[in-house]
Amino acid sequence: MNETPAEARVGRWDIFELALPGPEGGNPFTDVEFFADFRFRNRLTRVRGFYDGDGVYKVRCMPDAEGEWTYVTHSSRPELDGHTGAFGCVPAGANVHGPVRVHNRFHFQYADGAPYLPFGTTCYAWNHQGAALEAETLRSVAASPFNKMRMCVFPKHYDFNRNEPEFHPFEGSLADGWDFTRPRPDFFRHLERCVDGLRGLGVQADLILFHPYDRWGYKDLPRATEDLYLRYVVARLAAYRNIWWSMANEFDLMRSKSLADWDRYFQTVQEEDPYHHLSSIHNCRDVYPHGRHWVSHVSMQSSELHRVAEWRTAYRKPVVVDECCYEGNIHRGWGNITGEEMVHRIWHGVTQGGYVGHGETYLHPEDVLWWAKGGVLHGTSPARIGFLLGLLRGAPHGIEPLATRSGVTCTAREGEYYLMYFGVHRPAYWLLTLPEDREFTVDVIDTWKMTVDRLAGRYTGSCRVDLPGMSHLALRVMGLAGAQEPAAARG
Amino acid sequence: MNETPAEARVGRWDIFELALPGPEGGNPFTDVEFFADFRFRNRLTRVRGFYDGDGVYKVRCMPDAEGEWTYVTHSSRPELDGHTGAFGCVPAGANVHGPVRVHNRFHFQYADGAPYLPFGTTCYAWNHQGAALEAETLRSVAASPFNKMRMCVFPKHYDFNRNEPEFHPFEGSLADGWDFTRPRPDFFRHLERCVDGLRGLGVQADLILFHPYDRWGYKDLPRATEDLYLRYVVARLAAYRNIWWSMANEFDLMRSKSLADWDRYFQTVQEEDPYHHLSSIHNCRDVYPHGRHWVSHVSMQSSELHRVAEWRTAYRKPVVVDECCYEGNIHRGWGNITGEEMVHRIWHGVTQGGYVGHGETYLHPEDVLWWAKGGVLHGTSPARIGFLLGLLRGAPHGIEPLATRSGVTCTAREGEYYLMYFGVHRPAYWLLTLPEDREFTVDVIDTWKMTVDRLAGRYTGSCRVDLPGMSHLALRVMGLAGAQEPAAARG
Repeated sequence: MNETPAEARVGRWDIFELALPGPEGGNPFTDVEFFADFRFRNRLTRVRGFYDGDGVYKVRCMPDAEGEWTYVTHSSRPELDGHTGAFGCVPAGANVHGPVRVHNRFHFQYADGAPYLPFGTTCYAWNHQGAALEAETLRSVAASPFNKMRMCVFPKHYDFNRNEPEFHPFEGSLADGWDFTRPRPDFFRHLERCVDGLRGLGVQADLILFHPYDRWGYKDLPRATEDLYLRYVVARLAAYRNIWWSMANEFDLMRSKSLADWDRYFQTVQEEDPYHHLSSIHNCRDVYPHGRHWVSHVSMQSSELHRVAEWRTAYRKPVVVDECCYEGNIHRGWGNITGEEMVHRIWHGVTQGGYVGHGETYLHPEDVLWWAKGGVLHGTSPARIGFLLGLLRGAPHGIEPLATRSGVTCTAREGEYYLMYFGVHRPAYWLLTLPEDREFTVDVIDTWKMTVDRLAGRYTGSCRVDLPGMSHLALRVMGLAGAQEPAAARG
Repeated sequence: MNETPAEARVGRWDIFELALPGPEGGNPFTDVEFFADFRFRNRLTRVRGFYDGDGVYKVRCMPDAEGEWTYVTHSSRPELDGHTGAFGCVPAGANVHGPVRVHNRFHFQYADGAPYLPFGTTCYAWNHQGAALEAETLRSVAASPFNKMRMCVFPKHYDFNRNEPEFHPFEGSLADGWDFTRPRPDFFRHLERCVDGLRGLGVQADLILFHPYDRWGYKDLPRATEDLYLRYVVARLAAYRNIWWSMANEFDLMRSKSLADWDRYFQTVQEEDPYHHLSSIHNCRDVYPHGRHWVSHVSMQSSELHRVAEWRTAYRKPVVVDECCYEGNIHRGWGNITGEEMVHRIWHGVTQGGYVGHGETYLHPEDVLWWAKGGVLHGTSPARIGFLLGLLRGAPHGIEPLATRSGVTCTAREGEYYLMYFGVHRPAYWLLTLPEDREFTVDVIDTWKMTVDRLAGRYTGSCRVDLPGMSHLALRVMGLAGAQEPAAARG
């Protein structure tokens, strides 16, 4: 029996990995059952291992509590069975907050209680572009406000994205046929490096498990191998704290799959994932029934941002509009709105209690469009999105939307803090109804110029605020001492 | 028996009026039945007369065919019964085209076949503001592109509109009570002068028969007097060729009335109106079932202009979005969009085959807001609306919307003429699929700057048009000789 050295130390929410030699013959992906039971005090977590090629089997654990963890392996093959060991889980590293969970029904926070406000972007196939461009994308993300990345496991075949990927997910070739029962470890090790690169930046990897933009056959995996694929992905990646599972992009365009198939994928992932990462599914036109219990949050494609309130009511879950059109100038309607319109939509959704994702599709001489391949951000919206994120980080905990009034959306902690967005409306003045026993400051916010102008004086009770008569303004109204100060929050 | 002099001459679609002395005692509005049968060749039209005060009874006819017309009166009172006479209907005057009718299911034209493109505005209570302001409003309308005016019979009580009207529609007073069985002829004569002022400008009077903004009791007329009121209005005004009947503004805010009441009003107006003027009803939130056969066209309040196609499909009638928010700066969400947004919405609706109305609500030191009182137009949208109207007048007859593609709306006569609107989308280029056996010109239209830039060259088949990368552009694509030229059209 192998034993891990007793001095093994793993940071909380980092990855403990056990590697064991095992059989190479036959098909190690299908012939060998291998898993481990990880024990922390009286809690036991069973985790599936995976074959990593070259006769090496691995199993991973993301410990979520400090202290002594032990494990024992189980396998259908004696050389992988009965291995025991232990490791110590030590305090989380700097900026490590654990996986993101749903919080307060409509919102998110990290496992350690730190708030998380999803301000995501989309680079569907950034991880299929080779080392140089992938490194550039990570640098761009690091310099951006974005803290979530939508990305596909499989390579993508679509407009502006016809290049052959460096790695293929299965053994074989398009010409001679794929062996979908044999995932290629080099492909998945590379995928892990990409996910890990985001993890190091504190960015969530919203990992898309299936998608319809395909010339290799991945969108129509033989049914018998779908579960194999899903189990393999989950076994490898669930230990990454920044993983979110997205069953599909535009699932409704994948005609070979029924709603029951999608239900089964959710169930498989849920059964296999010991950590219950966030799980959702993204639509083109037909919306998946997000009310089903294995869906953690709504992942919507829609440009109808005014419906955020409706979706909150319908699903009683966090609403993330992952795709509301992209800033850019391509000839597709979903990819040619202005930075101004992108920023408007994000403010509009956020002040209704939702979250709205970014994407960018500017024509590029080498077809390096951010939305597909990553690279460099060219648009005007990211800076404004960062400005909004900064404002929200300064808001008190637990803000929730009020009913939209006269077209003005507002998220608030009533009696304490209000962030109103006027969008296309530009009244010459606005009437506030504030508590009479408290004074408030009022800031006029230009969402485009990113300015915050504190108005003179203090406001209380029923009062009038004169506005500069421009559209796309916001108002922030904050109560002065007498109630708690806005909490310092991370997101 | 009185007889009208045989030489009486009336222009086609003008008004012939017969005035007769009759009883003054009792209640002439309820006690006296009076109508006339107008005969043209073998066609007989029965028209209700009305009491105009001071012992005078009148009955009006709008002849729609040239030639000799005769009439005979009928009454419950002998002094009004059995009068006969004749008049000659002569050719219509310059710029007289008759009443507007539904044409080609989704559109309108005048009775003489001239096209009519409704580009309306709203001055709900302009006709309750006294002679000076009313004259100013008419001058403003004359200088504007607008060819339809939404206006209320009854005075209005609402924000920015608290002034007491000069005329009241019924005998009595608010203090002592109204006698709703006695309409005041001076009120209605004044209303007729206002409608006539519009008629002289070629502007349709979209006359709102009931509305909820009221401090006098007009919104809750006793049921027994509702029909009296409707019959009286129709008897007086139906002969004005520019009348459209709007049963209500925001009918759903009038809680005392049921859907059956609204149905009955429609039926009453339909029964009483010999000329079957266009009839509709305007909503706040709950939409009246516009499919009912007495509704000639949809009169919608909505800012969801992308639904125009849906409403066309649902109702199979012309769709007029009479209210999609107003250009202005008041604190109400429906009254503070920019001129840019107003113009955007109108283009968006029109290029989907609908029609979209204008309104204006700028704060004014004396509360003279166009939407309520008329006066002077201050906004930036009317000029652009006129520009769009001019483009449509230059379009061939029978354009219809194509399915929206990539967010781009388009109204077209396929193979001949296309007017596309890009709205918030600003692709760097656009791909056209044109017939290969014809050449086309392409114009890039800046909907705000009102410029039409003819691109160099001729376009045919599948081709690409480079665009300037701005939002709110339109493209006009017109076929060159080989098919008919765009018709010169009036609207």
